Amino acid sequence: MVNSQVVVDPQVQTVLDALKGRTIDHVFFVACGGSSAIMYPNKYIMDREALNISSDVYSSNEFIHRNPRKLGENSLVILCSMSGTTPETVKAATFAREKGALTVGFTNQPTSPLAQESEFVVKYEWGEESIAFNTNLGLLYQLTLGALNVLEGNAKFDKLINSLHNLEAVFEKSNKQYESQAQQFGQDYKDEKVIYTMASGANYGIAYSYAICILMEMQWIHSNAVHSGEYFHGPFEIIDKDVPFIILLGLDETRPLDERALDFSKKYGEKLVVLDAKDLDLTGIDEELKGYIAPLVLNNILRRYAEQLSEARNHPLSKRRYMWKVEY
Amino acid sequence: MVNSQVVVDPQVQTVLDALKGRTIDHVFFVACGGSSAIMYPNKYIMDREALNISSDVYSSNEFIHRNPRKLGENSLVILCSMSGTTPETVKAATFAREKGALTVGFTNQPTSPLAQESEFVVKYEWGEESIAFNTNLGLLYQLTLGALNVLEGNAKFDKLINSLHNLEAVFEKSNKQYESQAQQFGQDYKDEKVIYTMASGANYGIAYSYAICILMEMQWIHSNAVHSGEYFHGPFEIIDKDVPFIILLGLDETRPLDERALDFSKKYGEKLVVLDAKDLDLTGIDEELKGYIAPLVLNNILRRYAEQLSEARNHPLSKRRYMWKVEY
Repeated sequence: MVNSQVVVDPQVQTVLDALKGRTIDHVFFVACGGSSAIMYPNKYIMDREALNISSDVYSSNEFIHRNPRKLGENSLVILCSMSGTTPETVKAATFAREKGALTVGFTNQPTSPLAQESEFVVKYEWGEESIAFNTNLGLLYQLTLGALNVLEGNAKFDKLINSLHNLEAVFEKSNKQYESQAQQFGQDYKDEKVIYTMASGANYGIAYSYAICILMEMQWIHSNAVHSGEYFHGPFEIIDKDVPFIILLGLDETRPLDERALDFSKKYGEKLVVLDAKDLDLTGIDEELKGYIAPLVLNNILRRYAEQLSEARNHPLSKRRYMWKVEY
Repeated sequence: MVNSQVVVDPQVQTVLDALKGRTIDHVFFVACGGSSAIMYPNKYIMDREALNISSDVYSSNEFIHRNPRKLGENSLVILCSMSGTTPETVKAATFAREKGALTVGFTNQPTSPLAQESEFVVKYEWGEESIAFNTNLGLLYQLTLGALNVLEGNAKFDKLINSLHNLEAVFEKSNKQYESQAQQFGQDYKDEKVIYTMASGANYGIAYSYAICILMEMQWIHSNAVHSGEYFHGPFEIIDKDVPFIILLGLDETRPLDERALDFSKKYGEKLVVLDAKDLDLTGIDEELKGYIAPLVLNNILRRYAEQLSEARNHPLSKRRYMWKVEY
């Protein structure tokens, strides 16, 4: 009898079956913009957990032109594009496959060019109707820790699957918990011209995504995702009473970096938006994995912050001046 | 008879001798802020040239707390701090050495804590009196390609040494070439509140350094180093007639990314500062290595741009409100 709690997504399971007996020495995470940002916590997991396998995250076109010499038959290349039409990512799949790498394309559109160019396809859900287990982040985690399980015997895989099955409930609770704070954020920051984000470790990609996709792309607000450790070696000179920072505090091993950055920012800044994963109810998430799961929850909460900001500014998240509208 | 043109820095040669016969499967480039930024082109060289060795660039504190599982006896850890007192970097050296890694500390101060904690020390020159071959970037390149030469037989090492011996002359010529443009930059951009930088490939670290160290740290101007490939997946929505971008065009394989970003920016932006390595006189630099050397030259030119901006704004590059002044 199969315990329903340890059932892996069948598409991911197909990839894991293909990995059995195969030699993989490097994982390349390849995508653009928001789809690239969600690769960062996967790289964090790789670094923390992999015994022998190394990994890199590259923007798709950088990957193609950089043309890493190690890319080849012993590489696993994980790609992602929601529409499956992002030209650079489609091209990266073709490129990697020609080099003999095992390619896996994550997309919301299973008949898209990315799906066609990738050896394996993982269709993910998106939007209001999706549940956490089946989102891009949920499925990527299954593949990353699943690959480490198959290739190196990593023992955290079952715990991850169980935890991911409980993640939707965590999302729902945290959305309620942060509802009024998200609304307040929209009101308080609607007139800002610059908003920085800051994080480290497993959460850095979430800060990056918020800076480049939400603030710069969807709201035309100047931004930069500052790394909490780098903060003290340059960027912190920018903070002042009138400079807003969204600061993420995670539960992973790099949390002390975020705490230090927050302590300093409290002394000299006044416009601080703090999202601390310690405040979350993570019931159902394995203790050992909370550091890895926190960015998924923070990312989900930040989406509410984006919606509220957009509403308060009367600038829809879907509004663009160049993307999909002009030639580029 | 030794050809004086292929003489490697003796401190680097000592490290290379120690690498002979040793197994190294991963290189960690570890530093903070500006010293971290100069590691990026070294990672680019590693990716392009290494047959089997993988590599990562980490901010020192991220490195310690992330604690990569692969870090160990088969790791080469290259650290850098000008004063040799950066606490996170000193601690990272101790941490890596305890793990059995081979550690090399680059510093301007050969009796500093970083020098004491590192197994090997490379003293570099800095400031007006330094020559290109003996700067942090010049010496780091010698170690990176030298290590690939010793460990994997990379054949470009001698060409690199010869090219680096000719680099100071290139610096001098390019400084003269860009003198009036640097001055113009200071005048034109002295009142800007936000200035973006943009690059890719071998040059991204230079754009990063300019954003976080020159603009944010030394001039208190908002900034963000946008990756030319990521630009079209979010950040480009921010550009407009009144949003300044410093765009670097390199000579390495990722140049098409920068060209595309520039073409687009010209259509919708008007405040563009373009530094194109194609305009440089790179006499003495081996054809095969121009893509790797370009960031060193662009970095040197950008220092002049920083000085002129600082002068026009009457805000000295040495001015700080927090760094070295308050507790952090």
